[in-house]
Amino acid sequence: MKKVAIIGGAGYTARELIRLLMRHPEAQVVAISDIQEGRPHIASIHPSLAGLLDLCLEKLTPQEVAARADCVFCCLPHGASSSLIPALLDGGTRVVDFSADYRLNDPDVFAKWYDQKHTDPERLGKVPYGLPELFREQIGPAPLVANPGCYPTSTILALAPLLEAGLIEPRGIIADSKSGVSGAGRTPKLLTHYPECNESLCAYGLGRHRHQPEIAQLLSTAAGEAVDVLFTPHLVPMDRGILTTTYSQPRGDVGEEKLLDTLREFYAEEPFVRVVDHLPATKDSMMSNFCDVTVRRIGDRVVTVSCLDNLIKGASGAAVQNFNLMFGFPEVTALI
Amino acid sequence: MKKVAIIGGAGYTARELIRLLMRHPEAQVVAISDIQEGRPHIASIHPSLAGLLDLCLEKLTPQEVAARADCVFCCLPHGASSSLIPALLDGGTRVVDFSADYRLNDPDVFAKWYDQKHTDPERLGKVPYGLPELFREQIGPAPLVANPGCYPTSTILALAPLLEAGLIEPRGIIADSKSGVSGAGRTPKLLTHYPECNESLCAYGLGRHRHQPEIAQLLSTAAGEAVDVLFTPHLVPMDRGILTTTYSQPRGDVGEEKLLDTLREFYAEEPFVRVVDHLPATKDSMMSNFCDVTVRRIGDRVVTVSCLDNLIKGASGAAVQNFNLMFGFPEVTALI
Amino acid sequence: MKKVAIIGGAGYTARELIRLLMRHPEAQVVAISDIQEGRPHIASIHPSLAGLLDLCLEKLTPQEVAARADCVFCCLPHGASSSLIPALLDGGTRVVDFSADYRLNDPDVFAKWYDQKHTDPERLGKVPYGLPELFREQIGPAPLVANPGCYPTSTILALAPLLEAGLIEPRGIIADSKSGVSGAGRTPKLLTHYPECNESLCAYGLGRHRHQPEIAQLLSTAAGEAVDVLFTPHLVPMDRGILTTTYSQPRGDVGEEKLLDTLREFYAEEPFVRVVDHLPATKDSMMSNFCDVTVRRIGDRVVTVSCLDNLIKGASGAAVQNFNLMFGFPEVTALI
Amino acid sequence: MKKVAIIGGAGYTARELIRLLMRHPEAQVVAISDIQEGRPHIASIHPSLAGLLDLCLEKLTPQEVAARADCVFCCLPHGASSSLIPALLDGGTRVVDFSADYRLNDPDVFAKWYDQKHTDPERLGKVPYGLPELFREQIGPAPLVANPGCYPTSTILALAPLLEAGLIEPRGIIADSKSGVSGAGRTPKLLTHYPECNESLCAYGLGRHRHQPEIAQLLSTAAGEAVDVLFTPHLVPMDRGILTTTYSQPRGDVGEEKLLDTLREFYAEEPFVRVVDHLPATKDSMMSNFCDVTVRRIGDRVVTVSCLDNLIKGASGAAVQNFNLMFGFPEVTALI
Repeated sequence: MKKVAIIGGAGYTARELIRLLMRHPEAQVVAISDIQEGRPHIASIHPSLAGLLDLCLEKLTPQEVAARADCVFCCLPHGASSSLIPALLDGGTRVVDFSADYRLNDPDVFAKWYDQKHTDPERLGKVPYGLPELFREQIGPAPLVANPGCYPTSTILALAPLLEAGLIEPRGIIADSKSGVSGAGRTPKLLTHYPECNESLCAYGLGRHRHQPEIAQLLSTAAGEAVDVLFTPHLVPMDRGILTTTYSQPRGDVGEEKLLDTLREFYAEEPFVRVVDHLPATKDSMMSNFCDVTVRRIGDRVVTVSCLDNLIKGASGAAVQNFNLMFGFPEVTALI
Repeated sequence: MKKVAIIGGAGYTARELIRLLMRHPEAQVVAISDIQEGRPHIASIHPSLAGLLDLCLEKLTPQEVAARADCVFCCLPHGASSSLIPALLDGGTRVVDFSADYRLNDPDVFAKWYDQKHTDPERLGKVPYGLPELFREQIGPAPLVANPGCYPTSTILALAPLLEAGLIEPRGIIADSKSGVSGAGRTPKLLTHYPECNESLCAYGLGRHRHQPEIAQLLSTAAGEAVDVLFTPHLVPMDRGILTTTYSQPRGDVGEEKLLDTLREFYAEEPFVRVVDHLPATKDSMMSNFCDVTVRRIGDRVVTVSCLDNLIKGASGAAVQNFNLMFGFPEVTALI
Repeated sequence: MKKVAIIGGAGYTARELIRLLMRHPEAQVVAISDIQEGRPHIASIHPSLAGLLDLCLEKLTPQEVAARADCVFCCLPHGASSSLIPALLDGGTRVVDFSADYRLNDPDVFAKWYDQKHTDPERLGKVPYGLPELFREQIGPAPLVANPGCYPTSTILALAPLLEAGLIEPRGIIADSKSGVSGAGRTPKLLTHYPECNESLCAYGLGRHRHQPEIAQLLSTAAGEAVDVLFTPHLVPMDRGILTTTYSQPRGDVGEEKLLDTLREFYAEEPFVRVVDHLPATKDSMMSNFCDVTVRRIGDRVVTVSCLDNLIKGASGAAVQNFNLMFGFPEVTALI
Repeated sequence: MKKVAIIGGAGYTARELIRLLMRHPEAQVVAISDIQEGRPHIASIHPSLAGLLDLCLEKLTPQEVAARADCVFCCLPHGASSSLIPALLDGGTRVVDFSADYRLNDPDVFAKWYDQKHTDPERLGKVPYGLPELFREQIGPAPLVANPGCYPTSTILALAPLLEAGLIEPRGIIADSKSGVSGAGRTPKLLTHYPECNESLCAYGLGRHRHQPEIAQLLSTAAGEAVDVLFTPHLVPMDRGILTTTYSQPRGDVGEEKLLDTLREFYAEEPFVRVVDHLPATKDSMMSNFCDVTVRRIGDRVVTVSCLDNLIKGASGAAVQNFNLMFGFPEVTALI
């Protein structure tokens, strides 16, 4: 039985994480640290967790958290994470970080896209990116894992095998992503006020979304050469789910069956990637840790469609998957 | 052509009002007063109004508004309205007030339910309640009309004819109302944050909702005796629409046909109340000024179901209907 | 490890049931019987189950099903169930029946509300109603359990404790229920066509819904006297969730605290009923086996509000709960 | 006053058309022809039209329709339209056709994409495409106008000005479109069954959607050379609205301001195209005849985003706009 703690308990990723951990026979949630005043019960923050976890939020120092837990799930926004994580690691605990702080290898790229200097730059590039389908070996022994972004996961799982196999051109890739609203977090604002975004669809952050460099970096790693991708996110009136449609050019005369077979072989042993023949809907993977992927050859384009639940495979499910790898539990534990 | 002004331009009722007034051949929107900084264009507040109205919000005194307009639509919250309206009336303009400030007759009832002393108590009881189906005669010549609440309109239109005809008991009436989220206004808060209220349904304000005394007062007027009603609002994951289900006891042995006929006769000449045989859906009256009503006799109960669009017949459409009556235009102008 | 089979695999309750059973360490799904042509794979019917269960639908006789399984979940519509279940029981298997066929005690009441003569009338009244919170003792040893209806579960869990304690009058009870659309099943029809029911709300089946006698029977059992209830269902634009608001009269001068305490004590040991102080939202229990209940005293009325997921606690979760009781597994297995 | 008739009255486009025509001071709906049995009242088919139009559906021959009406709106599916329209034109009436039958110039292209031989091939290429922003001059005097498809309108209005000005490359254009569910029509099927498509997002018809050749033909006309476009539609869980994101390559070193100015100038006099600086949401143009368009230069790509209501500017609103042009009424009549 491993003792786990959560830092940042009021958001959706923490709620989903706790829900999943309640099913984990080898994980015990021992602490939730948060800046909320007055030690509120977790069920007063997340009514859906009533009857599942009897714990109050506490304001804890990183040292206190590290002393209590074998593993810490850090559900803080970027910037906040990297200011705590060195202390957590010094305290001897292992960490799965939900923020973007340790995903990028280059502190200058981080500074450019996140408008701030990285506070722990020497660790960048040494932290495995927590996508087990690509980095399982590195995740297992790591003290700290950078849990991937939701959009990047949907994009990378679709394109990495094709780039690695050299079946598509690394230049001029387009990733048109559509996400449910929970991806925008739990802080009320006009954009996500129900009567504004319900029954409405919009693009946002064109050319400026912070997942752009993350996608480019990971695809470049997969391709073994610089990949150029244009990422455009859209906000869809639904709670959960991301669907990413990518457009790229085939390298040589590759047919649809070869493309599909490449995906099928790449993910043959993967428990959570389903290469499907049909066009997947986000609902097929809703509330699950699955990512559904398919590919089409249309005219002179290769088109992939991939779906996942942004809060599960795109966040908290991936975190549990990483936890399982880090502590030697079967990878699917608590995730079926 | 009448010059009209709006006070409080940033909310949903103002937006709907402007949209309707753009279709009105005899109304010209000449000013929108609001506390927003810096004279923003109305289209920057309500992008849907781009190309329809070329006007900037201004911070205006009541005197300035009165000097410019023949009629003012006051889209302010309760309390704020009654602090401006005396000055507007003194300035010689006529007013349709969207707030609850002049709906109740009794300042003590107002003070109890709205937690504040009324600032213009001597006017209470002299302002017609702007439900043309019940008070058309009084609305026409009035300098000030109190535009009804959305829940009250749906409840009163269903029950007033039956109470007036003495077909149901005035005691123990239940009004179980269900409303779309736009009724909660445009200010972001956790309850109306998309991922919170989407795919969710809840009751709220049980026994404490401020439309309760409004419903009771109007039904008592219709019945000619004190009516006791329990009103319970629910929040439904949709933009617009109110459906109210009422439960009452028949007075004597009144059958379903008699109940339906009573409604049909009461509304025979009304352009905006449709007495239907089937069970109406809110979508039937969405984006329209209609209220759909039906009634059933089930066991020892009389059950009514009524539907309307809370922003149109429940707010801005009713206001235009009142405006038409006040200025002698055909009642349906701009409302079909 | 128990072998379980499902009859009727194409609907939503079967899909949810399979999803839950995949988490059950002591249940193995060995067969899915259905009338679909050509042995389709379950994942071709329910894409969300891909990667979870590798099984094809088969056309099986009740004898064949009984021979293979220790327990059969019968997900057929009313009428169809009772024509198969005697053969299943004769074959020596145990059955959880999702239909209404064995819920009512009186074949005449069944015939009246279901427009058909019951084909297995002598078994009526001897089959436990599968609501563990009320009938745990009878469920354990039963060969056949009648899984409750979704609306009845939400209504009964709110009212039975108050009726049993004699705190509310058994006459004149109103149950105003609101349900998500999945309760209407998976067969496409105009009422549930997306552009018809999205952003819309309606009442349906007023006075004619078949859950009415089921609710009345169970509440009468709880009260120890005849209970008269008016049940009105509404269709809400969301996938899942039922919220039932009930209105009754207090018997004597019972206060809100006494009402709440009665619920709290009644459910003190129950793992799946949460008596809450706040007004619950359906989303709190979505995708879970919880039912949230609260009660208010408003004027001369007692008002309860209860929420559950119609496909889980209102159907498949309850079925797994019953399965656990019937086979001696911890009641919460696969349900957290 | 012009007499208008509608053929095919049961669908969403007919309902929207009637709703708009009720506001038209110079149009009188005199007949609705449909294959429904038994002359049902229009309000029994579309409850929202109760109180607006008192007319029954009739089974009429094209000759009968032509004899009664100055203009016929033909709301039939492809194939059905072209089998009636020659007779309507012979009868001396003018026609706005909602189907795709007269949109394509080449009968072979029609045959390939619509799986049927065109029954009126000699008329192809002589019927103006009813997009007033591009073909106003031809629409005015035409006896028959081919009302555009919803996806094509959103795509063409965004790209035609840029292609005509030679600012983007005509090869390799991608149009990633997202549509609300009403675009799929009113016939219930599993894909559009509420619990299937609610809270879900999918791509469909990749490379096979029939709007692909329509878009290519119209963009080629605008460009004056062959345009190659890949069109991918997606189904979004909302009633109305299309958002199309296009990706193309700039021809030469054209900046964002030049792109925006080109759109602004092209549509400077257009009442229904709003070139906006911000990223539009579909809700901004919902229930209106507006199309909102913007453009961005991101890296080596030109990205446009355009939004419209698929049932209004994408269908019935455009039809009324064409009607206004054909009969000399102000173009915005009934459309504000």
